Amino acid sequence: MRRALADPDIEKRSEGPVPETFDPALEKLVEDIIGKVADKWTMLVIETLEENGTLRFTQLGKTVSGISQKMLTQTLRRMEEDGLVRRTVHPVIPPHVDYALTPLGRSLGKAFCGVWIWAEKHHDEIRRARAMFKAKG
Amino acid sequence: MRRALADPDIEKRSEGPVPETFDPALEKLVEDIIGKVADKWTMLVIETLEENGTLRFTQLGKTVSGISQKMLTQTLRRMEEDGLVRRTVHPVIPPHVDYALTPLGRSLGKAFCGVWIWAEKHHDEIRRARAMFKAKG
Repeated sequence: MRRALADPDIEKRSEGPVPETFDPALEKLVEDIIGKVADKWTMLVIETLEENGTLRFTQLGKTVSGISQKMLTQTLRRMEEDGLVRRTVHPVIPPHVDYALTPLGRSLGKAFCGVWIWAEKHHDEIRRARAMFKAKG
Repeated sequence: MRRALADPDIEKRSEGPVPETFDPALEKLVEDIIGKVADKWTMLVIETLEENGTLRFTQLGKTVSGISQKMLTQTLRRMEEDGLVRRTVHPVIPPHVDYALTPLGRSLGKAFCGVWIWAEKHHDEIRRARAMFKAKG
């Protein structure tokens, strides 16, 4: 369920259902953000950094199972752009780069928590649904 | 944060961090489910069906902004397969087909709620992060 972006005064006046949003530009931005963060790889990178703290690129690649180097590069760049991860270049020889969650990234990890719990709670139901769908042809 | 799939007895015995999971097959299934549901279009279709109840394909296509007919077909089929939507064919002339959330689909909508709230709460922070990233070049 999505929270309505409602003006509290209008909400008070209204007797019917609360209108969903009053700012199309804000709605578009929120949908754009959802479009970027509601992504399997983003969720898995956040989970991995939550569990392991700061990691180098190669360590991330080994821990996020199934991710290609190209996809990891894209995912990390987008996450850095949105302020979810902090990329640090250490000026040593040879230089090394590592990644950690920002407070914003950690807060997204908490928001995702409900989706992980849902998947873990309902996997049997989903498995049954898939078997029924297959049987139906 | 992901909930550990831990055996409660082992959890009790352990003094250190709780091991993440003990069943690789279950972990793989949960990751597969996350990979399918952590998807922008799935989230938007769930939101639309939550707000509007039962809808026909064409109504869904008009309400989920920006979705192509092909993507809507794929998304609905996958959601039906996983038991998130119920597809009903009405034997009238001409026949018509509509879609509604199942109880499982509604429960996923509730789990997603935290992600929508997160996006609406933090959009300013994300906007600032993007501007800074751009300025850095």
